[in-house]
Order: sequence, then structure tokens, then C-alpha cells
Amino acid sequence: MSGGRKAHAGKFFEDFRLGQRIRHATPRTFTDGDTSLYIALTGARSIQHSARPAAWALGYRDRPVDDVLVFNMAFGRTVHDVSLNAIASLGYADARFCAPCYVGDTLRAESEVIGLKQNSGGRSGVVYVRSTAFNQDGERVLTWVRWVMLPKKHLDSPAPESVVPELPESITADRLSVPSFLDASKFDTAASGGSALWEDYHGGERIDHASGMTIEESDHMLATRLYQNSARLHFDALATRGSQFGRRLVYGGHVISVCRALSYEGLENVLSIAAFNSGSHVGPVVAGDTLYAASEVLEKWTLPGRDDLAALRLRLLGLKNLPAARLASPRSAEGAYDPHVVLDLDYTVLMPRRLPR
Amino acid sequence: MSGGRKAHAGKFFEDFRLGQRIRHATPRTFTDGDTSLYIALTGARSIQHSARPAAWALGYRDRPVDDVLVFNMAFGRTVHDVSLNAIASLGYADARFCAPCYVGDTLRAESEVIGLKQNSGGRSGVVYVRSTAFNQDGERVLTWVRWVMLPKKHLDSPAPESVVPELPESITADRLSVPSFLDASKFDTAASGGSALWEDYHGGERIDHASGMTIEESDHMLATRLYQNSARLHFDALATRGSQFGRRLVYGGHVISVCRALSYEGLENVLSIAAFNSGSHVGPVVAGDTLYAASEVLEKWTLPGRDDLAALRLRLLGLKNLPAARLASPRSAEGAYDPHVVLDLDYTVLMPRRLPR
Amino acid sequence: MSGGRKAHAGKFFEDFRLGQRIRHATPRTFTDGDTSLYIALTGARSIQHSARPAAWALGYRDRPVDDVLVFNMAFGRTVHDVSLNAIASLGYADARFCAPCYVGDTLRAESEVIGLKQNSGGRSGVVYVRSTAFNQDGERVLTWVRWVMLPKKHLDSPAPESVVPELPESITADRLSVPSFLDASKFDTAASGGSALWEDYHGGERIDHASGMTIEESDHMLATRLYQNSARLHFDALATRGSQFGRRLVYGGHVISVCRALSYEGLENVLSIAAFNSGSHVGPVVAGDTLYAASEVLEKWTLPGRDDLAALRLRLLGLKNLPAARLASPRSAEGAYDPHVVLDLDYTVLMPRRLPR
Repeated sequence: MSGGRKAHAGKFFEDFRLGQRIRHATPRTFTDGDTSLYIALTGARSIQHSARPAAWALGYRDRPVDDVLVFNMAFGRTVHDVSLNAIASLGYADARFCAPCYVGDTLRAESEVIGLKQNSGGRSGVVYVRSTAFNQDGERVLTWVRWVMLPKKHLDSPAPESVVPELPESITADRLSVPSFLDASKFDTAASGGSALWEDYHGGERIDHASGMTIEESDHMLATRLYQNSARLHFDALATRGSQFGRRLVYGGHVISVCRALSYEGLENVLSIAAFNSGSHVGPVVAGDTLYAASEVLEKWTLPGRDDLAALRLRLLGLKNLPAARLASPRSAEGAYDPHVVLDLDYTVLMPRRLPR
Repeated sequence: MSGGRKAHAGKFFEDFRLGQRIRHATPRTFTDGDTSLYIALTGARSIQHSARPAAWALGYRDRPVDDVLVFNMAFGRTVHDVSLNAIASLGYADARFCAPCYVGDTLRAESEVIGLKQNSGGRSGVVYVRSTAFNQDGERVLTWVRWVMLPKKHLDSPAPESVVPELPESITADRLSVPSFLDASKFDTAASGGSALWEDYHGGERIDHASGMTIEESDHMLATRLYQNSARLHFDALATRGSQFGRRLVYGGHVISVCRALSYEGLENVLSIAAFNSGSHVGPVVAGDTLYAASEVLEKWTLPGRDDLAALRLRLLGLKNLPAARLASPRSAEGAYDPHVVLDLDYTVLMPRRLPR
Repeated sequence: MSGGRKAHAGKFFEDFRLGQRIRHATPRTFTDGDTSLYIALTGARSIQHSARPAAWALGYRDRPVDDVLVFNMAFGRTVHDVSLNAIASLGYADARFCAPCYVGDTLRAESEVIGLKQNSGGRSGVVYVRSTAFNQDGERVLTWVRWVMLPKKHLDSPAPESVVPELPESITADRLSVPSFLDASKFDTAASGGSALWEDYHGGERIDHASGMTIEESDHMLATRLYQNSARLHFDALATRGSQFGRRLVYGGHVISVCRALSYEGLENVLSIAAFNSGSHVGPVVAGDTLYAASEVLEKWTLPGRDDLAALRLRLLGLKNLPAARLASPRSAEGAYDPHVVLDLDYTVLMPRRLPR
């Protein structure tokens, strides 16, 4: 058959080689349908994503697409080539949001294999990829590293040389993209419903967000299909019956979306996400779980040349079936995660500063 | 902490004072995504909302946004400040739809506290607010009164002076907004699928709509999140486990949407909703309930200067788990509602008149 | 009452007469919300529907609306007049996709009764209709024949003369609409993720698509409402409790949508659907079922005057609760369908040809 494979079964560990470059399929144009569905799926309420005049006031040419929607849409491009067969999505790092997206923009994505490590036991291995999403003008919109555990197809295929990329613990202020047109002095805290600005947060502060959201099968599948993420474990109740969890798993990106939306109260004035420094899905989420969120303030940075906005490095903890206020500590003294923790995301946001009076 | 509250817990009865004005957060731009989702969530079929040419023929500059979608989106703005902690949403009154909304319009809302009454027992009280939604030009789109029961935070806080606003039983014809551009003589009854015009309805007539719709958790949560209504009782299965009903409640505005859509058959030629005279959610709706609808014609009014359209005052009864044709009477002789009734909405619509031949 | 029926109960077998023409209600404008929802409901990934630049490259003036979405939206127009009371939707034939649809186009539909046959027993009959959907310019977009079994309202009403229309087994190449502007030489197989072109398929080939999708009540109801298909058996859990299957049935058009999307892997380079030659819903699908798909290549046709594209006649088999690779044969030697088969659709697609080097 000259036409190459049909009915593609997904890649295995030994299908990757260091330095390999992958151009992912399915470019995707953002529409107003995507942005409305995103609100319907998450309850997101940021004013710059909700209202065109609020976006205009900040200097955007239209409502920007929610950063986590951009992340999930970009991520969706990569699943077919990277993680269709993934046993586990192990982590993210060094994700930088480089330019805003708008309705009408078309996203495409590429990846490069930057690390490989066969697991002891020889049944699986970890693949590290740096993925980059571009818009229709070739402008870089988002770049991120993730690593996934993939099964080997043949247990006797030789192990590659282990290469584990060095990744920054966090993205320093000088590497953050801050749109030059953005004018945070026009941010309207009456419209956002929250009065706390950058000056009002302090390192070590924790915010227990009160809202919770129970996840239904339809909700997570709608979201995951919207992103054209075709990983089977999210959709096929029959095939997953024999899996470790016995049922469909909620796509981790939807967990990020929901927890980010749950964290709105107390972080109303976030302008945009500048980076995901690192993140991991600590535990599985299945339909029926109720998600909650807590935020910790990790660091505060001023940004050179900007007195209208500054950066907050935050930790977003996603919890299942435990309200945030009832979580003593996400990890035990020994470092083990509380079993309710499902997401541990270290990320950086831009936030307006208090104007001189 | 100078930044004010974070992780807002919602307002309690004693947080309101008579005459207080609240500017609600989160302005919201309507998109085509919202209108499509509204159809997908309700099955609404009015031609002026479904087809641009049908809207143009009537004089609209584009498809107007479905009135109940406008209501729910406007209502959603107010929840965070008014009813996040509501024990019960007791009623609506004097809701007037003042101007049509289109995709691209941005809604914002304000409220004024117009009544307060502590309940006997002193554990809770009723707050009356008049809310008004404006578009981006400051034009009033919708104004309505509602009253909710809220818990007191501290049982020993003093009771305010009781003030219960006087509300009209219904909005009289002279107070209805009828767009001057609207030309109902162009309404196409072949396109709507119904031949009954204003002349064909008579006071006291009841229409038992045959369709029923079973509500799923995903459906009502998608709708409620679309409206950015963040009231917890709709979303958090864990927190509501200990509540009166032991589970998530369906947002009442979604019940109105579904019952209104179910009432399409027999009321195909409604041009627009002019008013909600009064309404109340008589019983709770939970996922798994099947909704049905019956309509009663209460009154008929001609409108000054208009021979192309007139007004019908209708009663929309929403029922759960009982087809409309099997409901003898919504209330017993003693005035108690049949336990299947969940919605009793007195509203006024505009409808084309039969043209002189 | 001069205004005609209200609270329409749907048509019965004896309400149809041969040659009867029906103008269906509810014209519908396609929006970006519809196309995003379609992706969210199905996971469809064709590049010409996903990305505007991919559509432009092929000569479309914008992303065309997915053919199966057009089919379902057109079909939805006809339900109220044809199949509201249908006992069974028995088959489709001779469906030709005549012109692409775009966001902003408005669809309306008409039908003609082309066959009638009372069933032995006299309790029901089969109605054959040819339906045609037009856009706002009166251009024919889609035409198809279907036949449904309807109950009789009165068992003693006389049987009409039996007329069963002759239908082509398949639509021959000369009757396929191929847009003259379409330039398949610009199709980007790197973007689609599949390398197989028309030359790479051979008659008799079968592709077992690996993906499966479990259907939830919300998913199929959202889809069916989006199409404004109001057939009660999809929505009313209470009324269907006493029916043959004891519960809501999934609308067959949603089964086609999902199976078509599941068949993407291995058929990535389909340009458009030109025809449904014939199809039937072999078995019922209910929420909780997991759908799978297999494709068979039935025929290959070159098209006169086109060396950039050609036609493939395919068979799409939809399966429930059995992965495609585990289906030996869709029918037994005696011709009975395997009980897992739910859809048997014979359809024709356009696909790019391999360019001369």
C-alpha cells in the first residue's frame, strides 16, 4: 500500500528519536463559538475575555482568547502525534504565552523531541517534547515543554541513550512576554468585581476559593472534543473499563480550565497568563468528582519599564472532593501529596498595579 | 490587607441596606456562540432568532438575541452580588424588555435595593432588588424586580425596618416597549409553522404543549455557566449533599428557557417578549426531571397606533414529570400548587395581528 | 377557532397523500457557534472545516460547513412535518450534496411525498419523501429521499394506493456535484495528518477505525436540539419509558456524525461528501453505548475533466459496544446484521488524487 498507514494506532516509545521534529496536523481557526463554549464549559469570568469594550480599554484589538483555551487548543494539536497512547501525562514546564490570540486567528503547532528515557523494567519510557504553536502569520503564540510516559510496542527494542532536558524552575521576569500595547492603567476593577491589585498580594499568602464544580462525562468530553484532542482514554468507556481506573479520565487541560475558573474569586484582576512555570496532574479526575481550587502566592516581580502592571507567580492547587478551606497542606512532611490534590500548577500572571494617586 | 476581601463568600441579609446601589461585575458581549448554544440547550425555534432573513423582514438589523437569553445573561450579572447565598429565589415582577439585543452588544447591570424584610424567627430575610441591564450605548435593555431569601450571617444583628415594595400586578399596555421599526405585517407564518395570530387566541384558553424535555446535569450547568451565574447550588454536588434537596438544583432561568421553548407549539408567532409581569419558581427542579409546559391566555390588548401587532398576556406553567394534558388545575381549591408545578410565569408577548384582506 | 391547530400533535400516516408538497418551517442561519458546537459534539477534524486558511487554499471563500452538519440541519427542518410521530426512520437514499454552505447562509427546506405504502396489519404505513434544502439565494444545497414508518391515527381509515418510488442503488459519477472552484491540488496532507490519497484506496479494502466514543444523554440532546429536531423520542425520558426501548433514543443523524468523525483516521483527506447513496439505522443507540466505526471501499471513480480529485464510494459501518477490529462481518451468511451494527451508510466522497511528479 503506497499511501502509508491508515487507521493510525498512535505512537509508542520507540517511535521517537532525539531531535525529531513533528509538524502536527489540523490547523484550527478560533471562532466566537469556541469562546462561548469555553465560558459554558468552565464558567470563566475575566472581563477582557467576556466583554469587547473591556478588552479595547486595555489596548487589545478585540477580546483576546482565554489563555487556557489557547493552551488547550494548542495542546490538542499535539496529542495525535505525541500522547495518543500515553500511560500518563507527567508534567509541563517552561510554557510561555508569547502573543495574544483573537477570534479569526488560526493556530498550528510543531514539536521537537528534546528528551528520552526508558523506564527501568523496559516496558515504557518517558518522552520530552517542546511544542510551539504559531498563528497564521507565523508568529509564535505559545511554547511549552511536556513529558509523557509511553508504552513500548516491542519490549525487546533497544533503549535509547537517556537524555533528560534541563528545564528552568520558573520563567524569570526577563523572559516573560508583555504586550507593548497593553495599558493596565485602564483596567476597571469595578467591572471585574475584585479590588485586589498587585500590591495587595504577598508571598506565602494562600487563597481558598470557595466555589466547587462537579464534572460530568458530557462536560469533559465536549471540552476535549472542542480541542480536537482525540486521546481515547477520555472518550471510550468500554475500552477504559479494563484500564487502571476502570473508566474514562478527564483530560488534564480541562481540569486546569475549571480550576483556573474556580480561582477567579480572589484573583479577579489577572490580566493574562504569562507562563506556566511547571505543572503536573497529581491524581486522576473522573466524572462525578467535584473540583475545588486554592491559590498560593509564590513570588512577586516588578517588570522593567512598566509601572502599570507587574507579575505574580502563583501556585494553583486543584482538589477533588475536598473544599479548599479543608486542605491543611498539599503535601505531607514526607512530600507525598494529599490524595485530594489533582493539580499542582506553578504559573505566572500579569496584574495591574495600584496607580500613584 | 489593603486590597479588600479575596475569595468572597457572598452577601448575607444584613449586608444590604435600603436604597443601596450595586454596579455588578463582568460586562458581557453577546456572540453567535451564545445564540447557538442557547438553541442547543433549549431547542428554541422562533424564526426571528433562527434566521437572519426572517429578522430582517421584521425590521431588525440582525437576528435579535432571544429575550429569555437576554434575561438570563442579565440575571447572571446580578447573582454574585445578590443571590450567591440565596436560600430561595422567591419571585420576579415588573420585568420590562425595553430594547432588543444583537450579537456584538455588551450587557452590564446595576441593581438597587428596594425592599428588606427580616423573616420571623430572625434567621433569614427577604431582599428586594430592582436590576437594570444596559447595552454598550447606555441604553436600557431590561429592568426587573426580584426578591430572594438570604440567611443572616449573625443571628443577633438587628432587623432593618421592613419595607416591601409595591409592585404592579401586571405591566399595562402603555408601559410596554414596542420597537417603532418593527413591522409585524411581514411576519411569515409559513416559516414559523403556526397559523394562529393574535385574533385566534381568547382569554381563558389553555394550550397543553405536548413536548417534554428531560434535564441532565450537564445541560443545566452548561446553561448556567454560559450566563456566568456562579451560584454554588447549581454546580457543587458535594456541598449540596447536605442541603435541603441533597443535590444540585437547576437554575430557575434555565427552567424558564426550557419551558418557553417547549411552549413553541401553539405559540409559534410570538414576536418578542415584552414583559414578565410576575413569576415564581414554585418547586425545585433537579437533573432527571422531565419538564412540560402549558400556556393560558390571560388577557388581550390592542396597542395604540399599531394595527400590525398586539399584546397577549400569557401564563406559562412549567411542570415536572407530568405531561401538561394530565394537569387538571395548577392549584387546588385551597390555593396550593399541584406538586408537579415548578414554574408559574405571567408574561406578555407581542404577536402579529391578522391583516385586513 | 379560525387560527388553525395549536399544540400540534404531529402527522399520522393518513395525513400524507402522494404528490403533496410541504414547505417546512424554521429557516436557519448557520453561525460560527454551530460549527464550534459541531466539533465539540463530534470531535470532527477535517482541515477545511477546522481552519480558514486550509479552506481558502482549496478555493472555498470561507470554511465550508461540515457536510454532515448541513445534512442534520436540513433534516431537522423536516422532522416536525414528517417524522414527529415516526415509529422508525427506515432509510435514506439518493442524497446529493449540491453546493457548499458557509457561516451566514440560511437554510430552508421543502419536501414532496413520493411514496406511500400501508403496512400489512393496517396499523401503520411507510411514507417516502424527497426533501430539498435551499440557501438564501434559492440555490439547492442538498436533496435526499427518506422513508419513515408512521402510525395510523384511525385504524379504519382507508389504505392509499401503494406507491414505492424507484431509487438508484447509488448516485453515478455524472450526477455528483463537484464545485468548479475547488482545487484539490492545494490539499495539504501534512495539515490533515494522513498521507493516503485516492490512488491509495482499493475496492474491497476495509479500515477498522480504532477510536470509540461513548454517548451521553446530554451530548445527543444538545446535538439534536441544535438541529431544532423536536422528535420527542430523543428528549422525553418519561414518555419513552413505556416505549419499545424504554428510554430516549439517540437521533440517527448524531450517530452518523459521530461515526463519520470516528472514521477520520484513515480517511483524513476526504474533501467533501458528494452523496449518501443509501443508508439505514440498523439498530437503536441509547446513551451509554460506545460507538465505533469501520469503513469499506466499495468503488472508485475518476471524474470527467478533473485530474486533481476523484470519487470514492465508501461504506460506513457504525457499531455499538464492539471495536471495529472485532467485527468479523456486518451481516451473517443469511443476511442478518450483527447485533452490534447500528448504521450502514453507503456514501461517496471526493478525495485528492496524487499529483503527477
